[in-house]
Amino acid sequence: MTNSQLTLVQIDNYGPWTVTPNPRREMDLQTLQSRLFADLAQFVGSRDGYVFFTRFDNMVAITNGLDRADHALLQETIGNRYPVTISLGTGVDEVPVAALEAATAGLQQAGSAQDCDRREVLAGKFLSEAEQADSNVRIAHFDVNDATGKYTDQLNEFDSFIQIEQGYATLMRYLREEHGALSFFVGGDNIISVCPTMDEADYRNAIDHVETAAGVELKVGVGTASTPHVAGMDAKHALEECRHEGTAVELGRPPEEVDVATD
Amino acid sequence: MTNSQLTLVQIDNYGPWTVTPNPRREMDLQTLQSRLFADLAQFVGSRDGYVFFTRFDNMVAITNGLDRADHALLQETIGNRYPVTISLGTGVDEVPVAALEAATAGLQQAGSAQDCDRREVLAGKFLSEAEQADSNVRIAHFDVNDATGKYTDQLNEFDSFIQIEQGYATLMRYLREEHGALSFFVGGDNIISVCPTMDEADYRNAIDHVETAAGVELKVGVGTASTPHVAGMDAKHALEECRHEGTAVELGRPPEEVDVATD
Amino acid sequence: MTNSQLTLVQIDNYGPWTVTPNPRREMDLQTLQSRLFADLAQFVGSRDGYVFFTRFDNMVAITNGLDRADHALLQETIGNRYPVTISLGTGVDEVPVAALEAATAGLQQAGSAQDCDRREVLAGKFLSEAEQADSNVRIAHFDVNDATGKYTDQLNEFDSFIQIEQGYATLMRYLREEHGALSFFVGGDNIISVCPTMDEADYRNAIDHVETAAGVELKVGVGTASTPHVAGMDAKHALEECRHEGTAVELGRPPEEVDVATD
Amino acid sequence: MTNSQLTLVQIDNYGPWTVTPNPRREMDLQTLQSRLFADLAQFVGSRDGYVFFTRFDNMVAITNGLDRADHALLQETIGNRYPVTISLGTGVDEVPVAALEAATAGLQQAGSAQDCDRREVLAGKFLSEAEQADSNVRIAHFDVNDATGKYTDQLNEFDSFIQIEQGYATLMRYLREEHGALSFFVGGDNIISVCPTMDEADYRNAIDHVETAAGVELKVGVGTASTPHVAGMDAKHALEECRHEGTAVELGRPPEEVDVATD
Repeated sequence: MTNSQLTLVQIDNYGPWTVTPNPRREMDLQTLQSRLFADLAQFVGSRDGYVFFTRFDNMVAITNGLDRADHALLQETIGNRYPVTISLGTGVDEVPVAALEAATAGLQQAGSAQDCDRREVLAGKFLSEAEQADSNVRIAHFDVNDATGKYTDQLNEFDSFIQIEQGYATLMRYLREEHGALSFFVGGDNIISVCPTMDEADYRNAIDHVETAAGVELKVGVGTASTPHVAGMDAKHALEECRHEGTAVELGRPPEEVDVATD
Repeated sequence: MTNSQLTLVQIDNYGPWTVTPNPRREMDLQTLQSRLFADLAQFVGSRDGYVFFTRFDNMVAITNGLDRADHALLQETIGNRYPVTISLGTGVDEVPVAALEAATAGLQQAGSAQDCDRREVLAGKFLSEAEQADSNVRIAHFDVNDATGKYTDQLNEFDSFIQIEQGYATLMRYLREEHGALSFFVGGDNIISVCPTMDEADYRNAIDHVETAAGVELKVGVGTASTPHVAGMDAKHALEECRHEGTAVELGRPPEEVDVATD
Repeated sequence: MTNSQLTLVQIDNYGPWTVTPNPRREMDLQTLQSRLFADLAQFVGSRDGYVFFTRFDNMVAITNGLDRADHALLQETIGNRYPVTISLGTGVDEVPVAALEAATAGLQQAGSAQDCDRREVLAGKFLSEAEQADSNVRIAHFDVNDATGKYTDQLNEFDSFIQIEQGYATLMRYLREEHGALSFFVGGDNIISVCPTMDEADYRNAIDHVETAAGVELKVGVGTASTPHVAGMDAKHALEECRHEGTAVELGRPPEEVDVATD
Repeated sequence: MTNSQLTLVQIDNYGPWTVTPNPRREMDLQTLQSRLFADLAQFVGSRDGYVFFTRFDNMVAITNGLDRADHALLQETIGNRYPVTISLGTGVDEVPVAALEAATAGLQQAGSAQDCDRREVLAGKFLSEAEQADSNVRIAHFDVNDATGKYTDQLNEFDSFIQIEQGYATLMRYLREEHGALSFFVGGDNIISVCPTMDEADYRNAIDHVETAAGVELKVGVGTASTPHVAGMDAKHALEECRHEGTAVELGRPPEEVDVATD
């Protein structure tokens, strides 16, 4: 059974800051946002977590393996180096969207995202040492079949992007509504989902749905582990197997085999 | 009449690189991509252009005001500091999507995006000095009405994101199909479009379409100038006026008035 | 008794790379070097270590608290995101310079710094869990008395810099020769030293020597802990006490008191 | 005749900020400083200027080719993206140290570096378009003969660093006192100097002085142009010629020949 720890990263009172005292240069905002995300990716990623840019002013992280002290340190280092601060809400649940619901609620209860007094909130639950388990995190890594040949090398870049974006929009809604999974576009033709327990037919149905509704053909590799990085790396290897075998779904090794193989 | 210079930035042979010799840590890829984008945003932005992350391995820039030498220097500096290189294709047209079509074609003709021999291509047309004009670049800056109150402070972050994403997906397709405009999500609840000549009713129809089709209420400020930064800053001021006046569309000052005001 | 774990970070075959196939733009090299250092500072620093830029192509870190897996991960993430790779040598000793001697020897034995085949070496000893102790790391944080009033606000910046630099050059040699301590300029008027066991008179003699030989007046706060960050933060607080009390040397709390205070 | 435009970059009220409300994590300060320097290196460097980290809270740039608008934009973009702001003073003179003297004076007259009310000063003179000339900037690029073989591969890294540092300390004082030239350590075994008009014997004397006083053997390539980048690139090529020819001083092509060669 999965047990996801999700973190909502919210820049404090960001919208008003971007136009105070006057609207700031857009490319400076883009630089600030993408570098803040990069710093989170390094901090969380080097502790085997995953973070996604989502809306940039609100980012979602899978933080199985990171404790409260890690989160407090992250908040401190960002506050030391950026003109903005971040609040962090965490939640734990078998179903990813429920974990994020709890993570979000912790911040909402502390005040509005645009409250100028609400700064550097750190609220929510963390998995204990005893709750760490090899089955906690399930990562599905999707990509588009032959995206370079069908889109990038054929269409203008915006029309390629529309195709990929449509596939993503369809998948994200389907997996959220059917399974409470959270899916994130990570660039190129890649989508990464954090999922609850799902079987091969569930993934196949998701892929079929996207092909029918949006005309975009996906394949997916799935991995399961105690941390996003290990689960995600197993998912990447499974996706490589899809490529070599011409299959649409590869579930990766079950956690116990991963352990054996690593030993 | 608008005259957009668009640049396609394409990381050379990126997909294969990310899995050679083995899949690389996802958070390292996310860091690389977002920092590369940040560097482009600073280079292009400090020369009054705009760049958007799009798919990260393919990014789209509005480069009115940057010439061939600027593009060659950008390519050199990225090549000096990253483990990957970039190809740049440019195009010029009254209609943004046609400019991007030309920009993309220049790279496609030089080979596939996953050609390991096709590196650091620099292809395409640039506006001459004589063609620089105050009417060349039209920027529309959209945001969602009360996104914090309706979404961020109410829903879990993923469901907020779905709403914003749906609004964006609907707008991007509508403006591309109806007007050949290119729209980019820039974080939070903000969308920036580079547009051909369009009147107030065209923007109003776009907003109405998004509200009807996706249930998301937008407003928009529009600016026009010889460069994206100046047009975009005027659009931001117009959007602030929407906020204060409660209006849905503000067209900003026509270029000649901007000039007068600046003098 | 102190027990320092030192790491030498060496960019592999960097000199030749900077001029291949032709000399690269100097400001690109400066950007690459300083960002690589910043990434090391975040990685090492968020694990409570310290790293110093030294010569940039060779950097020295105090890594008490980081194990072999941390070092391997650091090497991997840099290799994934930069056009250069790094080798890491580690050493452990009561006396810092002896630890660095061992760290350097590990890399030298694997080949020359300009060997094109010697890449991503990871060699040397690490402190075991059992060897972690509150007395292991001693950090001395020096600054110049009234540097702003005497130099920055009075002289041209280069002449200010010469004064600070002279003070640093004198102190670094003295502490290395007399005590085997390693001293690093960290910007402004600040010097941080990793020291073996030294008493108050030792620090006072060092300060007297610098004043006599270079005419630069220093003061120093000292801290001791199991990690550089905790020792260094105690040193900073001790230096603040120098400022308030007008003293030249403050030794900070002994480790056992730090523990009590923290509990 | 040379005509250098120097810029002093000073972080406003930085010292107090680093300890308010409590001392900040040292590695966060190191990250902030080195990334700020990297951003300056990209901004200034992509406009063919040079910037040196010096003391990090005070940095020195050679800005021939950058005008007041460039400086104002640099100040704005840093203010938008960092928790600190910068003041900029500029000066122009035949002799580099005199130009820096004027640049520094402009800031000093506006208040102390630790004045909490003195923010984002932009003061001083800029070269006019008419004053741009191929003889304005003279760059000397020094390195140490066989530093890898004699130091890096033989000594522990700190003792290597002491050698290089001694060479630098000796050269910087000599060139400043004898010629008003400003010399900056740029990593590895490299020193870059901005010089007034000097002949081959002057460089030879400097090298002899460093060998006698510090026991460090240097060689130097010199270039002259209207901007630091072009002069510096010519200096790098001249230094390569020293390597191939075994010479100690190569003066590079005079500006008129550079022009011919470039055509």
